[in-house]
Amino acid sequence: MDNNISCQMKVETGEAGYVLEDVPHLTDYIPDLPTYPNPLRSNPAYSVVKQYFVDADDTVPQKVVVHKDGPRGIHFRRAGPRQRVYFAPDEVHAAIVTCGGLCPGLNTVIREIVCALYHMYGVTRVLGIDGGYRGFYSKNTITLTPKFVNDIHKRGGTIIGTSRGGHDKPKIVDSIQDRGINQVYIIGGDGTQKGAAVIYQEVRRRGLKAVVAGIPKTIDNDIPVIDKSFGFDTAVEEAQRAINAAHVEAESAENGIGVVKLMGRYSGFIAMYATLASRDVDLCLIPESPFYLEGEGGLLEYVEKRLKDDGHMVIVVAEGAGQELLAAENSKTTTAQDASGNKLLQDVGLWLSDKIKAHFAKIPSMPITLKYIDPTYMIRAVPSNASDNVYCTLLAQSCVHGVMAGYTGFTSGLVNGRQTYIPFNRITEKQNNVVITDRMWARLLSSTNQPSFLGPKDVCEFKKHEPDICEFKKQEPATQSVDGDKSKANDI
Amino acid sequence: MDNNISCQMKVETGEAGYVLEDVPHLTDYIPDLPTYPNPLRSNPAYSVVKQYFVDADDTVPQKVVVHKDGPRGIHFRRAGPRQRVYFAPDEVHAAIVTCGGLCPGLNTVIREIVCALYHMYGVTRVLGIDGGYRGFYSKNTITLTPKFVNDIHKRGGTIIGTSRGGHDKPKIVDSIQDRGINQVYIIGGDGTQKGAAVIYQEVRRRGLKAVVAGIPKTIDNDIPVIDKSFGFDTAVEEAQRAINAAHVEAESAENGIGVVKLMGRYSGFIAMYATLASRDVDLCLIPESPFYLEGEGGLLEYVEKRLKDDGHMVIVVAEGAGQELLAAENSKTTTAQDASGNKLLQDVGLWLSDKIKAHFAKIPSMPITLKYIDPTYMIRAVPSNASDNVYCTLLAQSCVHGVMAGYTGFTSGLVNGRQTYIPFNRITEKQNNVVITDRMWARLLSSTNQPSFLGPKDVCEFKKHEPDICEFKKQEPATQSVDGDKSKANDI
Amino acid sequence: MDNNISCQMKVETGEAGYVLEDVPHLTDYIPDLPTYPNPLRSNPAYSVVKQYFVDADDTVPQKVVVHKDGPRGIHFRRAGPRQRVYFAPDEVHAAIVTCGGLCPGLNTVIREIVCALYHMYGVTRVLGIDGGYRGFYSKNTITLTPKFVNDIHKRGGTIIGTSRGGHDKPKIVDSIQDRGINQVYIIGGDGTQKGAAVIYQEVRRRGLKAVVAGIPKTIDNDIPVIDKSFGFDTAVEEAQRAINAAHVEAESAENGIGVVKLMGRYSGFIAMYATLASRDVDLCLIPESPFYLEGEGGLLEYVEKRLKDDGHMVIVVAEGAGQELLAAENSKTTTAQDASGNKLLQDVGLWLSDKIKAHFAKIPSMPITLKYIDPTYMIRAVPSNASDNVYCTLLAQSCVHGVMAGYTGFTSGLVNGRQTYIPFNRITEKQNNVVITDRMWARLLSSTNQPSFLGPKDVCEFKKHEPDICEFKKQEPATQSVDGDKSKANDI
Amino acid sequence: MDNNISCQMKVETGEAGYVLEDVPHLTDYIPDLPTYPNPLRSNPAYSVVKQYFVDADDTVPQKVVVHKDGPRGIHFRRAGPRQRVYFAPDEVHAAIVTCGGLCPGLNTVIREIVCALYHMYGVTRVLGIDGGYRGFYSKNTITLTPKFVNDIHKRGGTIIGTSRGGHDKPKIVDSIQDRGINQVYIIGGDGTQKGAAVIYQEVRRRGLKAVVAGIPKTIDNDIPVIDKSFGFDTAVEEAQRAINAAHVEAESAENGIGVVKLMGRYSGFIAMYATLASRDVDLCLIPESPFYLEGEGGLLEYVEKRLKDDGHMVIVVAEGAGQELLAAENSKTTTAQDASGNKLLQDVGLWLSDKIKAHFAKIPSMPITLKYIDPTYMIRAVPSNASDNVYCTLLAQSCVHGVMAGYTGFTSGLVNGRQTYIPFNRITEKQNNVVITDRMWARLLSSTNQPSFLGPKDVCEFKKHEPDICEFKKQEPATQSVDGDKSKANDI
Repeated sequence: MDNNISCQMKVETGEAGYVLEDVPHLTDYIPDLPTYPNPLRSNPAYSVVKQYFVDADDTVPQKVVVHKDGPRGIHFRRAGPRQRVYFAPDEVHAAIVTCGGLCPGLNTVIREIVCALYHMYGVTRVLGIDGGYRGFYSKNTITLTPKFVNDIHKRGGTIIGTSRGGHDKPKIVDSIQDRGINQVYIIGGDGTQKGAAVIYQEVRRRGLKAVVAGIPKTIDNDIPVIDKSFGFDTAVEEAQRAINAAHVEAESAENGIGVVKLMGRYSGFIAMYATLASRDVDLCLIPESPFYLEGEGGLLEYVEKRLKDDGHMVIVVAEGAGQELLAAENSKTTTAQDASGNKLLQDVGLWLSDKIKAHFAKIPSMPITLKYIDPTYMIRAVPSNASDNVYCTLLAQSCVHGVMAGYTGFTSGLVNGRQTYIPFNRITEKQNNVVITDRMWARLLSSTNQPSFLGPKDVCEFKKHEPDICEFKKQEPATQSVDGDKSKANDI
Repeated sequence: MDNNISCQMKVETGEAGYVLEDVPHLTDYIPDLPTYPNPLRSNPAYSVVKQYFVDADDTVPQKVVVHKDGPRGIHFRRAGPRQRVYFAPDEVHAAIVTCGGLCPGLNTVIREIVCALYHMYGVTRVLGIDGGYRGFYSKNTITLTPKFVNDIHKRGGTIIGTSRGGHDKPKIVDSIQDRGINQVYIIGGDGTQKGAAVIYQEVRRRGLKAVVAGIPKTIDNDIPVIDKSFGFDTAVEEAQRAINAAHVEAESAENGIGVVKLMGRYSGFIAMYATLASRDVDLCLIPESPFYLEGEGGLLEYVEKRLKDDGHMVIVVAEGAGQELLAAENSKTTTAQDASGNKLLQDVGLWLSDKIKAHFAKIPSMPITLKYIDPTYMIRAVPSNASDNVYCTLLAQSCVHGVMAGYTGFTSGLVNGRQTYIPFNRITEKQNNVVITDRMWARLLSSTNQPSFLGPKDVCEFKKHEPDICEFKKQEPATQSVDGDKSKANDI
Repeated sequence: MDNNISCQMKVETGEAGYVLEDVPHLTDYIPDLPTYPNPLRSNPAYSVVKQYFVDADDTVPQKVVVHKDGPRGIHFRRAGPRQRVYFAPDEVHAAIVTCGGLCPGLNTVIREIVCALYHMYGVTRVLGIDGGYRGFYSKNTITLTPKFVNDIHKRGGTIIGTSRGGHDKPKIVDSIQDRGINQVYIIGGDGTQKGAAVIYQEVRRRGLKAVVAGIPKTIDNDIPVIDKSFGFDTAVEEAQRAINAAHVEAESAENGIGVVKLMGRYSGFIAMYATLASRDVDLCLIPESPFYLEGEGGLLEYVEKRLKDDGHMVIVVAEGAGQELLAAENSKTTTAQDASGNKLLQDVGLWLSDKIKAHFAKIPSMPITLKYIDPTYMIRAVPSNASDNVYCTLLAQSCVHGVMAGYTGFTSGLVNGRQTYIPFNRITEKQNNVVITDRMWARLLSSTNQPSFLGPKDVCEFKKHEPDICEFKKQEPATQSVDGDKSKANDI
Repeated sequence: MDNNISCQMKVETGEAGYVLEDVPHLTDYIPDLPTYPNPLRSNPAYSVVKQYFVDADDTVPQKVVVHKDGPRGIHFRRAGPRQRVYFAPDEVHAAIVTCGGLCPGLNTVIREIVCALYHMYGVTRVLGIDGGYRGFYSKNTITLTPKFVNDIHKRGGTIIGTSRGGHDKPKIVDSIQDRGINQVYIIGGDGTQKGAAVIYQEVRRRGLKAVVAGIPKTIDNDIPVIDKSFGFDTAVEEAQRAINAAHVEAESAENGIGVVKLMGRYSGFIAMYATLASRDVDLCLIPESPFYLEGEGGLLEYVEKRLKDDGHMVIVVAEGAGQELLAAENSKTTTAQDASGNKLLQDVGLWLSDKIKAHFAKIPSMPITLKYIDPTYMIRAVPSNASDNVYCTLLAQSCVHGVMAGYTGFTSGLVNGRQTYIPFNRITEKQNNVVITDRMWARLLSSTNQPSFLGPKDVCEFKKHEPDICEFKKQEPATQSVDGDKSKANDI
């Protein structure tokens, strides 16, 4: 395990508490590799852009809220083109694979990896692996050229197909070896990146000159360290349609309730941001914030109050919210998993709708009209918006630069507004979650006026798990400089 | 002048080259002001969110690309609620004004200032100044309440109206004094923020307990220091429609040329980002990148080549591009200004279209069809998208927190992903421009395959103005850590 | 019953088989009513538009496909302003009610009734009945003015609220009488128009000078006689999003299946038109076309074939399709009804998805990925598009003209492109359905290449119910001139 | 000329004033042509749809507002498949050409002609003529197959290119003859259809077994007889964006004026319908309605009044409006024409904006802010909406059915909601215009409250040209049954 981590991350320290968590490099296990001048140096587009190359020493801090004399903390290697590369153009044989659920921007990332390899580095052999990980050993590949990918960024989905599971890693590395692939671009979420780490380690164990790089894909924005995942902006935008519809339905009926289920298996970011962007939402439920239905301070009491005050209400619920309540009702749900190893969730939107209907069925004086909207697949399948298109372009180009420069076992990611290379284990070791004691969630509570569902006792309970918050009264309030992992999405 | 700057910025230094450029505070010129506990401490939404308050020592670095042993550089004060405030709720009399051209998100900013004041701080007197700066002394005000602003974020424009000019600062401060206004929220661009600085200084000179705070508004993204301006994402998104239309028109005709003029008086960010997001553009012209029409390596030669190769092309031109060429043709254009003091530009889109038509009129074998699209006002007037809505919310709330905490003479702005308070002079002393020797522009050149219009001689000429790039061959390539002002929009 | 019909429709005949099915008039049961010159005659907007008034003899034929010497057939009275009216402006007390489910355009119809009454006829007393029929006796009313309704056409839903049921007709007429309402505008579907007919008869029985007029609202387009219902175009447009998403999801997975459920309780028009507009659909199921799952020529066989051929497929299913199959499985479903008297349907989309999944679970070599999308409430709640806005305007104005002219017991409707007044009974006596032996459905079959699910035996069976088709070989093919009720939506 | 007409139209009469204006047929000039059973008879999709074939005697009346004993009037032949066709599938060699400006739906029409020929009639040779009429003799052709056209309906423009002019008819017919083309589908506007008529006559003169059929394309909706042209709905919808933007700009400024120029060279339908759909427009100017600027009752007076009353206003102006005023100022404008023979218009939007600015420059107390938006090319280039997609499908299929059945020299068109075949000369002999004495324009005047710009004298003048209106006081008001050409777009 120690060895495992040491081959995943190279730690370097400096003055004033500076720490660099660096990514592996081909030369870590293959000495004496030849290098070549970066072809970009003779590319007309870059000939006058001398600042295009990044300095070998450039790093980016994980935390940017700092104190005058505080420690500098963890840094990551800055992404970008290097003066010298470890692949000759005609030596490269690249493969791209997309895994897991759909996310706006997949096609843009594919397009830009292909174009960067062709146009920047003169590479001409790029394969698409058909249908996710298992495509390495069970399906044909797709030849990707700039012409083939020219318009794909205007379409949703992924042109090379995707699937869940297929983590037969030795067979994948066999396939990589057999086909002579020496650059592997893996686009996928948490589970996929874990798989990428395993593939990287096996490639390294076999001593192959083959780079394994990841691009984090998660519409839920639940990958840690990075500022936000691609497609997230588009998803929040598209979610507005469903919320607007729920609002219209609710307003047009007596005691109208609109319920919208949004993505968010373990992290409520889409629900939280969509709620903040809309302003029409009266209750937002996310996996991170436990709630209860009955009794004082409970959800049903709040719904009743809102209907009495306003005559209608809109509820946004992330798919992973309240799963412990559903599980308590139905023991079988705790075990099932999908092919990606994700726990199969019961539909909390239907469950919640039923609970609310059942509650008001007992109050004849308050007949309600409840409309339930599940826009999940309509959101996932849209093409990425302009902002995500630019973001995907940068991610893809950064990744290609790193791969050509010989870095491996890394994920390309935006950290505090700069592209960086992050060791796999930092991406996969934990999840990015909404911190319900942080300011973004407070904004949400303020915007919806919903109860926190935390009684004094619950707060105590809750704080046991986050002891640094517990002792609030005795100490200064915690800040990001104290616990550096707080993500931008919680703590702006 | 020294005095001027000293009242605008308080500089503090620390270890390892740490510099804090702090913003003024009411107590800088009014001693012994009473303070009050922040009302948020008893607000239910915040009661369990102890991390909601920021630490008094939190700061955010301007540059995040750092070297292991490099200096820490300039920092700004982090935005956010403070434990104690300098206004009692019933003491506050706030005024909001919007100045300059329309920008998506104006109404969201207005809405969120009003709601933050009412719901977070219990303030109940908020005025809208009607029609920009001059509304302070020439028009009636509008009473703003949460109910009044409830749905305005779904509409484009600004409900309190806007105008250019009206910088009669003494009359404005008279009006502030006469009406008993003690919080002034000024939303506007470069010129407006300069005006805000003057108003702040006059308020300070008179010793008024009145805070003057700015929220930077520029659809062009030409304000320095901050990551990006609100409305920019929405504008780039909306610009895609025009580019798509130009592409369709061009593709459907023999030698079809689609020309789209986008906003960008001095800064080509919208044109650059819209081009990168679209991928259908063959030529992007911006104010920062000089070009020439005739001769080898010129624009017309390139247009000819593209038509011969592809049969059609799309040109995006920022409104401020090539103004020196237009001016050379028509000497009168150099003097006219609009009421904001902006140079009145000739329509470069029409001018360029005429030049291209005239050129091909001389080549009978290449009849062209040119369609010119100017979507400016259709872009400016759309409501902000979800991403900008959240961003505007954070900007507005940050500003209100700072104002309540007694800070003054500052602009609220996002720096490296965190909300900060920035002294006025840092916002107004220079512009944010596309750096055509930086990586973002290189990406654009690579994406369009357009010529750089810089011959070897021009590059030399160009480098005189940026000497740190000139000596490229003798030194390491410049990085952001060396010249810390490089904006995120150029240098991701 | 005879009496019932005679008070609902006045039949007049003419040469060459001409028949006029005229609508009732106040003077049918109240003699000697005073008349007034139409105020439009002195309205500046109409002063030069002499053709604005329709001729008293104008009628519109129900069928427009005619033979040279064929009979002229049924006609309806043309809608439009009359030279004289039966209400003085200050005498009018109008009420508007909306009933049943949401439909794009409701607010536009409300707006235009209000504006027509105010601006054309100088009426100043218009009430909105809150929350559907039952609002007449259980809720407060809403005062409607042009200012109040000025922007409502840009919002979805209905600002006066709606509900199902509430058909306590005597109490409604009591309320009409008590409040002194003399014009009742009833916007709703099939059941609502039946209710309107009952209200009209009761008003007539009591001898009240009160007009009862209907505006047909059905997003399903299932009301007969009229060309199409308002909101239908918008619904078909909005449905494209869901179909596009289903297509993207299906294409991105191995054996991907996208299932979209669309509105259409008894009539498959939305499903049929959305399928024809999209071209991405491989199977469209509607209530009118029976199908079966298992065996040769069955649905599952077809799905299998499509997946083998194309690797993916898109299915559109109207909510009322296959209900007989669901009912056969679950006997309890046949009895439940909603408050409008509509049979409560089981979710055919979920049922079908389960059936397909179960089928392929038995074929390990064909693992499928099925995504189910139900966009119903997202479609219903959008604002009407431009085309529907104009259509709603004409419907509303036509209705007001008829009411002012003293006609009653009628529905305003577009027949062969002209606004007409149609007796209630013609609207409610049957439904508009997709005729699966007609050309529009043939176009659909041709577009999707789906099987007809009709074996030779089924065709025979089917033809028993439509005997005029049965004898095809012996006679000329049936045409619209032979069976005149064929709707435009089937038979263009 | 007589001969000219007789070969263009076959008139047949019947009882009660019935007139059929029939289209030519190949057998009119080539006797003894063999016929074949329609392949649709054995097509599975049509096997149970016996009503799919239309009766040979089916006709559709041009006017549907009739009087009990009035004459039946002009009829057209109903479109649709016939039992027998005049081409064997392998004999057909079809060509499609698109001419003139872009219009939403062009690609859908192309797609559906190709698919109808392939899938319904087993035809496998379909050519696209590249770049309009002149493509027949100057450019290569494009092979069109169902696969090639599969997704084109989702894109704007025309994939086979278009151009103006190129009416060298003998060379076109030479090309038709040389290539062995025997079905020519010509999609274009007024001028294009005139060209099609000439081509038809030359084909007939040469005795070729080649059908020439037109599909009317005019985004302006200025083609007579037909209900509306394809793409019109989409254009009106898309125009809403520009009007909304103008409204936002106007509302946000003091004395803000938003001016939107819309398409409409000779006919103001887009401007009129877009205005009616929007409700935010205060003044709509169209070519059919003369106006004047100065003096009492003039445009400038009205603008002043509106600004004083409301503080802002929105003006929609069709491109052809007020051309006589512009011409009077600038005599050179009257002669220039584009390649289609259309008069080159001066930009009335810029002209009007300048006039308004100049007027208010003289009134210092009313500083205005005027924003001018020209969305023309953004409207033309969008893909067709769902409604237009279905409409284009029907048009294309109807046309193919008619061609296969041997009809020639006709245009496919929707008349009173039914597809028909219309002789070329009925389409080209006059234009469809907004009748400013008809009810649709009156609705517009009522909606905007604008002046009619017709003084008593002007009305008299105006009536000279429409004498049947002149004598209003002495006679019954005119109705559609009296002057049968009134289009649906004026007279609903």
